[in-house]
Amino acid sequence: MLDSTLDFIKVGFLQTHPSFGKKTANVEEAIRLSRQVETDLLILPELFNTGYNFLDRKEVSMLSEEIPGGPTTTRLLDESKRRRMTFVAGLVERSEDCLYNSAVVASRGELMGVYRKVHLFSREKILFNPGRDGFKVYDLNSFKLGVIICFDWIFPEAARVLALNGAEVIAHPSNLVLQGFAQKAMLARAVENRVYTVTANRVGVEKRGGRRLRYTGKSQIVSPEMKILASATAREVVAKSYNIDLRMARDKYITPHNDLFQDRRTKLYSGILSQL
Amino acid sequence: MLDSTLDFIKVGFLQTHPSFGKKTANVEEAIRLSRQVETDLLILPELFNTGYNFLDRKEVSMLSEEIPGGPTTTRLLDESKRRRMTFVAGLVERSEDCLYNSAVVASRGELMGVYRKVHLFSREKILFNPGRDGFKVYDLNSFKLGVIICFDWIFPEAARVLALNGAEVIAHPSNLVLQGFAQKAMLARAVENRVYTVTANRVGVEKRGGRRLRYTGKSQIVSPEMKILASATAREVVAKSYNIDLRMARDKYITPHNDLFQDRRTKLYSGILSQL
Repeated sequence: MLDSTLDFIKVGFLQTHPSFGKKTANVEEAIRLSRQVETDLLILPELFNTGYNFLDRKEVSMLSEEIPGGPTTTRLLDESKRRRMTFVAGLVERSEDCLYNSAVVASRGELMGVYRKVHLFSREKILFNPGRDGFKVYDLNSFKLGVIICFDWIFPEAARVLALNGAEVIAHPSNLVLQGFAQKAMLARAVENRVYTVTANRVGVEKRGGRRLRYTGKSQIVSPEMKILASATAREVVAKSYNIDLRMARDKYITPHNDLFQDRRTKLYSGILSQL
Repeated sequence: MLDSTLDFIKVGFLQTHPSFGKKTANVEEAIRLSRQVETDLLILPELFNTGYNFLDRKEVSMLSEEIPGGPTTTRLLDESKRRRMTFVAGLVERSEDCLYNSAVVASRGELMGVYRKVHLFSREKILFNPGRDGFKVYDLNSFKLGVIICFDWIFPEAARVLALNGAEVIAHPSNLVLQGFAQKAMLARAVENRVYTVTANRVGVEKRGGRRLRYTGKSQIVSPEMKILASATAREVVAKSYNIDLRMARDKYITPHNDLFQDRRTKLYSGILSQL
């Protein structure tokens, strides 16, 4: 399918409504829904197999898996091999004593890598360990992929580092709860880096242990020129894809005089690495 | 007027339609219009006194001024003293052999500083010298102000460095020509840094030397929670202001667990200073 001479690929998202804790059912439902769309790359939400609103770290641990080896990753690898495509999907990773809010990159039967969420949101700080490996770019033969998860959106450095390292598409598995913030900000992430972004959010309400969370849906694919190429409503369960022209993400010129990356005046940005 | 114990200040923009090259008339018209609004801080557009669509560097030079000393800065200083307020306004600065696309900060009769545009857009690279002094924060007693000019918006590092250095309000004098890009992206600049942003754009069409530019108006004030507090249409000449609560920009907590600045994982951002 993917060929290094190709300029066009199909990228998509799956907007889901998982049932908390029902891992097998959630995975099978996601696989079934994913077959409704023909695509080279499909982004699934954050924690798509478990749900999000954990009571405590013990519950996180019970629903966690090793990567590779766990049943969710294995299932995604099998499906990706059969369909000669790539999944990016969020799940709880267990590694020694740590629990990560992770996303696997499963491409045509091969585990290309795991991204462990760097910026934890709200109670995630109690439930998960923060990722320590930073932001990685995966070379998928015909294009380069970066991954951020949900709240990473608010830190422009995350997408920036990925784009500077060559990412042409940024996958953004999410369980967004703040009304519309991320969806709007991802327009900026796309245009400021001249990359495509694919936000895969979930929908529905989870009420557990007195905590009620409503997920905002509105998954979207955004172009390097800030156009919303495909999007979902706030409530539907749906898969969508769009045929993107990778040349637009490879060409950083926004005017004949302005290459967005060459124009960066990095000597004037040094304060950006100060840790407050 | 301004007092270090104050939490509220009024900030505003003036959206203008200057006539190319008619400096005195443009300055007087801007001063006249500015009196329609009562505000502590008023942002005027980029190159508000000259217009934007220069034919060549010679023309830029002819319309340039020294700062301080030039008539535009002097006029703004006088007016700012009389009204005990602060102007941020764009004009061409001449300094030795250099010509900068600059913005003055004129506060209650005092020239607080000059920002020289760092990221030049399109033909500005032929017309101006790029600023070499970086991004500065001005302490205006009751609040801290940063300045970026127009195309600086697309580089998240500019607003980021200002916010990390304490800016609570980011002034954004502009002559925007790309449809709506900057106005949308400034929503991200506000929320990702938890600052107020004030974009002062101009309107109208300038056709000179075969080059036609339409300026997009839609000046706006954005809150740290991504709300558009005040805005103008694409064509009107208007001054607007809004009473902002500075405490919101001083408090970087977006959830009880998440201080946006303390949460930054700067060791994982090191690639951001690589110059391509």
